Amino acid sequence: MAATEPLPDGLPAGLMDAFWAYEHALMTDDLEALDRLFAPGPGTLRTDAAGMLVGHDAISAFRGGRGGAPRRTVVETQVQVVDDDNALVMAVTELTRGGRGQQTQLWQRRAGGWVVTAAHVAVSAPALDTRIWRVAGDPLVAGFEDGPLAGETVAVKDLYAVAGHRIGAGNPSYLAAAPPETRHARVVGRLLDAGADVTGIARTDEFAWSLFGDNEHYGAPPNPHAPRRLPGGSSSGSATATSLGQVSIGLGTDTGGSIRVPSSWQGLWGIRTSRNAVPRDSLLALAPTFDAVGWMTRDPGLLARVGDVLLPPSPPPASSDVVLATDLLALATPDVRAAVEAFARSWGTVIREPFGTRELAEWRQAFVTVQSSEAWRQHASWVASRPSTLTPAVRGRFEAAARQPAADVARAAESLTGIRLDVRHRVADRILLLPTTPSVAPYPGQADQQLRDTMLELTSIAGIGGLPAVNVPLRTADGLPCGVCLVAAPGRDRDLLALAGTLTSLL
Amino acid sequence: MAATEPLPDGLPAGLMDAFWAYEHALMTDDLEALDRLFAPGPGTLRTDAAGMLVGHDAISAFRGGRGGAPRRTVVETQVQVVDDDNALVMAVTELTRGGRGQQTQLWQRRAGGWVVTAAHVAVSAPALDTRIWRVAGDPLVAGFEDGPLAGETVAVKDLYAVAGHRIGAGNPSYLAAAPPETRHARVVGRLLDAGADVTGIARTDEFAWSLFGDNEHYGAPPNPHAPRRLPGGSSSGSATATSLGQVSIGLGTDTGGSIRVPSSWQGLWGIRTSRNAVPRDSLLALAPTFDAVGWMTRDPGLLARVGDVLLPPSPPPASSDVVLATDLLALATPDVRAAVEAFARSWGTVIREPFGTRELAEWRQAFVTVQSSEAWRQHASWVASRPSTLTPAVRGRFEAAARQPAADVARAAESLTGIRLDVRHRVADRILLLPTTPSVAPYPGQADQQLRDTMLELTSIAGIGGLPAVNVPLRTADGLPCGVCLVAAPGRDRDLLALAGTLTSLL
Repeated sequence: MAATEPLPDGLPAGLMDAFWAYEHALMTDDLEALDRLFAPGPGTLRTDAAGMLVGHDAISAFRGGRGGAPRRTVVETQVQVVDDDNALVMAVTELTRGGRGQQTQLWQRRAGGWVVTAAHVAVSAPALDTRIWRVAGDPLVAGFEDGPLAGETVAVKDLYAVAGHRIGAGNPSYLAAAPPETRHARVVGRLLDAGADVTGIARTDEFAWSLFGDNEHYGAPPNPHAPRRLPGGSSSGSATATSLGQVSIGLGTDTGGSIRVPSSWQGLWGIRTSRNAVPRDSLLALAPTFDAVGWMTRDPGLLARVGDVLLPPSPPPASSDVVLATDLLALATPDVRAAVEAFARSWGTVIREPFGTRELAEWRQAFVTVQSSEAWRQHASWVASRPSTLTPAVRGRFEAAARQPAADVARAAESLTGIRLDVRHRVADRILLLPTTPSVAPYPGQADQQLRDTMLELTSIAGIGGLPAVNVPLRTADGLPCGVCLVAAPGRDRDLLALAGTLTSLL
Repeated sequence: MAATEPLPDGLPAGLMDAFWAYEHALMTDDLEALDRLFAPGPGTLRTDAAGMLVGHDAISAFRGGRGGAPRRTVVETQVQVVDDDNALVMAVTELTRGGRGQQTQLWQRRAGGWVVTAAHVAVSAPALDTRIWRVAGDPLVAGFEDGPLAGETVAVKDLYAVAGHRIGAGNPSYLAAAPPETRHARVVGRLLDAGADVTGIARTDEFAWSLFGDNEHYGAPPNPHAPRRLPGGSSSGSATATSLGQVSIGLGTDTGGSIRVPSSWQGLWGIRTSRNAVPRDSLLALAPTFDAVGWMTRDPGLLARVGDVLLPPSPPPASSDVVLATDLLALATPDVRAAVEAFARSWGTVIREPFGTRELAEWRQAFVTVQSSEAWRQHASWVASRPSTLTPAVRGRFEAAARQPAADVARAAESLTGIRLDVRHRVADRILLLPTTPSVAPYPGQADQQLRDTMLELTSIAGIGGLPAVNVPLRTADGLPCGVCLVAAPGRDRDLLALAGTLTSLL
């Protein structure tokens, strides 16, 4: 059809044939032809909403993984000829599923014929990015007209009650069986009272029991600042919505790191509050001993202003000694270590000393045992009757939880009492610095048990101690988000938030 | 900062200086510098999600109208050098409001320095395109598991009750005062019963009293198939959501053309049903004498399948004579006339004769008088106390309605009885063909009273007659959507839908 139309005057021979050959290869998902029509070598470029790909190999791997492009028809082309061997083709496409796309390609004639050296592709968006959101509105729930958070917008993790809506907990079957909530969760009500609007209900990992943000039911939310990598979880939707500027406040929870991990991986400020500092009414629990309300923002000022609304008054100010835990830092990858070290250096007055326990793996195990036991108690009746509705990783955690001997749980609970005292003693009245996550956000294939274990060794410290923890976003030398975590004694949430606000000059 | 960094080896002199100068001009909205940095002439290209702009003048006009680009920082650049005078720069930006952008520019060195000859710009999307949607979910309301519309998705115009949600009617103050609905509108309930999911509640013009789709409170929804032009209204959000493939069914209403106009302007199939053929329970009225349920789809098969669910059984088949109303055709612009003529020619068996009335302007006036009177009766109590919350055009219509002498309304109502008989007599048992709209979608500045008047002369015929009307999407020679309207006697909705299904081979 269009390929056989007469060519506009002055176009280099073969250019439009190559353009249409590419289009045909795309529609038939002919990977070999697509590879051939993209220039070989490390300088070839392709960009779309998910991020830039540099090099033929990266582009080829992307194509191989996506299972074909959406069906489309080219409805308009504009060609800019640079010279006989170079031209730009800009096209408008109409997608069979509705909507339009824009595409810009730079073509070059080489020995083997015309190839694309750079491509920029965009397609119209769905009503809702359902990887991020379950429901959203303009707003979904309006806040009161004035208040300290007027003008702010909130993504509510799908564990908190929003009146009139169900709690979905990241599982479609759970959602389908859930009754509409009759009142807002207490925290949601306080944010509305303070003038913030609720924009919508954001995705969570299933029952909040993951740190990666890779809910298979709905797809992993994107990570805007670490393209094609995982967003971090379980407060994944709230985090991504905040990174994307779709909201200013991402409300989440943190049991074993579910605020801190996405904050670190997405370059957000985030706080996990002290145990019981913020009420958890009408919030679906995972493991009540460790569950804590938390939130994420793009700037520390707002992080603190939300704290002013949600947190109880501060205890009197304590010591401001800041200690970088060198042994915890050693658990991080070199790029993250370097970022944290640089941060500590620019702070200047940081004491460097080991946190000092050699039992992190045991602490983590005690944490996991008690967490699992509580999660099972919380969800057994539902999970036991519908295990097949769970994704494999979370199902595996519930199954392991169900198999735990009661004696093991009792022993873990008992040892936790001692560990909690130990943690609090070691932190004392100081500010502890540690890497929030041991690495930058992994690619989906890299999110393994070993990373999870190391992560929990860092994150479970605050969980066990019931301590507040604030992520300060850093970047590695490669420009990828990571974070340093400020941890303090229970109740010092506001101290940490105030301190965080003074740190932007160091970043 | 980055502008003073050492340049990568091998980059043409001055290229990156120009790149950063452009970035600076963009951030300061320095229109003169931006104009200078884009190549002059008709071949310069710029594309983004709103569509392609061709030529320096079009790009300059666009910039002048938008009031600055969002604040951003360039976080990554990749340069492809074509030769000393030509290079492509691909950049990733981070927006101050959150999210990322991608940008591809082709630069050329000319006598006056480096200029952009082509640019492709994309930024991350908001949670919801609030020009299209007030609320959306995955889904917002799930349909029953099986049924003839299982797998289909519906955008519900913000006049229909969706249980648990308010009716907003396109006006923020009305929305704020509205109570949550306790049950679904009857039509919404039937669609759910048939297995369709409700994706969300879509924007409408204020109280459905416009044909342009330019609700100033929320911004006009985009028109994907006629970029930067108006979407048509008042079922504007439902139409755009359907065009974009965000839903398969756009549920709307049609009083004076509110289904037919957006269908014509966006290339959709759309039906306005016969008077009282489909119940209007829990649907906010505008002018009950003319109000009709309607819907839009991207293909005629689904248009008919929705009819199977919503419409009463057909009367026995009537004549299949098809008449192209030559006098009504003459009201259209030449491009639309040509498209309708070509369609009628390929159909082949179409009778060409005038519809025959010389009183279209009087009919329209009678229609408008009665419509206004009913709209005022419907909304006076609300509008009278809050006129300042209405946009000027709709406010003007309500104010004119309030001023209408009762005697004029009575006279118009009486004459309508005669006109209705006349319309039905002229249509009789035949299929009437007329241009759905007199022109393609106008640009915002072109949507004037004259266009509205001519449009109403075409659309009020079915409104007055209580006739079913189906838009068949056509394209002008320029590729812009327009439509031909099939009109028949009351109750022949299913006939029209079946007939529409046979017409795709003509398009």
